[in-house]
Amino acid sequence: MKNTKPLILISNDDGIAAPGLKKLSGLMRQLGDVVVVASELSQSAMGHAITMKVPLVFREVFNEDGYAEFVTNGTPADCIKIGLHKLLERKPDLVVSGINHGSNSSINIIYSGTMAAVLEATLGGIPAIGFSVQDFSLDADFTGAEDIILKICKKILENGLPDGNGLNVNFPKLNGTPYKGIKICRQSKAYWKEDFNERYDPRNGKPYYWLTGSFNLLEDSDDTDEWALANYYVSVVPVQIDFTAHSTIEKLNRINWN
Amino acid sequence: MKNTKPLILISNDDGIAAPGLKKLSGLMRQLGDVVVVASELSQSAMGHAITMKVPLVFREVFNEDGYAEFVTNGTPADCIKIGLHKLLERKPDLVVSGINHGSNSSINIIYSGTMAAVLEATLGGIPAIGFSVQDFSLDADFTGAEDIILKICKKILENGLPDGNGLNVNFPKLNGTPYKGIKICRQSKAYWKEDFNERYDPRNGKPYYWLTGSFNLLEDSDDTDEWALANYYVSVVPVQIDFTAHSTIEKLNRINWN
Repeated sequence: MKNTKPLILISNDDGIAAPGLKKLSGLMRQLGDVVVVASELSQSAMGHAITMKVPLVFREVFNEDGYAEFVTNGTPADCIKIGLHKLLERKPDLVVSGINHGSNSSINIIYSGTMAAVLEATLGGIPAIGFSVQDFSLDADFTGAEDIILKICKKILENGLPDGNGLNVNFPKLNGTPYKGIKICRQSKAYWKEDFNERYDPRNGKPYYWLTGSFNLLEDSDDTDEWALANYYVSVVPVQIDFTAHSTIEKLNRINWN
Repeated sequence: MKNTKPLILISNDDGIAAPGLKKLSGLMRQLGDVVVVASELSQSAMGHAITMKVPLVFREVFNEDGYAEFVTNGTPADCIKIGLHKLLERKPDLVVSGINHGSNSSINIIYSGTMAAVLEATLGGIPAIGFSVQDFSLDADFTGAEDIILKICKKILENGLPDGNGLNVNFPKLNGTPYKGIKICRQSKAYWKEDFNERYDPRNGKPYYWLTGSFNLLEDSDDTDEWALANYYVSVVPVQIDFTAHSTIEKLNRINWN
């Protein structure tokens, strides 16, 4: 008899021990067969880095509920490559990543390991979804988010996504109110204004710097993810890897280059 | 008297000692005042990673021609942040990155440290250009590319770029013929098919894997960068950080989410 349960590959960037990963894999087991491939350590802010200078290793471990998972020394993008090309015997029906402790809305996507896993999966033509909550604490409250995560995954398993597309799903931090619903959005324009926190090495007095910064939002249009989150909606942005600034092509063609 | 020479910030991902960086900084000194900020070691395939778990340090060094440069322990994206927010007293007129030993056309942009430097600069509203050659060898021949690099930088210093835009410039590997010219393109659709090269640890016999793969091009339309390179044009793709799959928004809105 053919196994008709969906096959779901899961990764994250907070590492194999993160509560968000455990929550997500538990939810996905309600929908299908689950394979978890995650980094041993946190890979936050690793962007779409892949591991070229050292070899990759992975091994099977068992989580506290007794489920087998694969732990690697790689980045989130590596984890997806390992899952798709070394561990799974067939193409998964869905790849999910998260639940990330911290927002991956707006410009955060470019720094995000969680979303690198999603984007890597889209390159293999697999529908992929990243889930993040606007709450950095490791005991972030996922209550209420669970039903929405299940609903979104079910809808995508039913409807699919255009080839090469994924979803970037972010949950707002609530103040006692329920989520207002799901809102399909575009990525907001924003940037991080760096502030280098200067300290001095106790041994030689030389300065070193912790990279810190503040988030600067450049627009507040109601079709953006940041607007949705600020208004207690769950933001859903369809994403793909195309860096082309298409509307600039015509402008550049007006310059005499040769 | 006001200094009216353009200020140009330079980085790369092959590290401070790469011949391509030396070539690029030499060329840029013909156009303006130059500040180089680069990683001590190669940061190839680091994508848009930034350094959060260890502090950043940087120090001034002098290259073999006696020019001061800054060397850091950070990624290319970190180098741009350090340059813009710690080292430069004013906003640069141009950021350039490279010359990268290896192509950053098509999907390679997502893994590229060279282009992460460019994209990071665009977030600060600075025109930025990444230069790469389709030749991995450290003694890659940049002959003929030099005039084109100068021409492109001059045109962008004169004309600027739309806010938030940069350029991804790739030079084809020539077979004795000159470059056919500059072609404005869009990013080709492609992916890397992974092939994990398996070896065994001599001490314990456990397997480890080198990440290798082959480039799979999904289209050959003559408006793409891969087409341009295959036909000996220098490809110029205007780029920006917007992962939104805009045409998918309407499709997702047809699903009943709530």
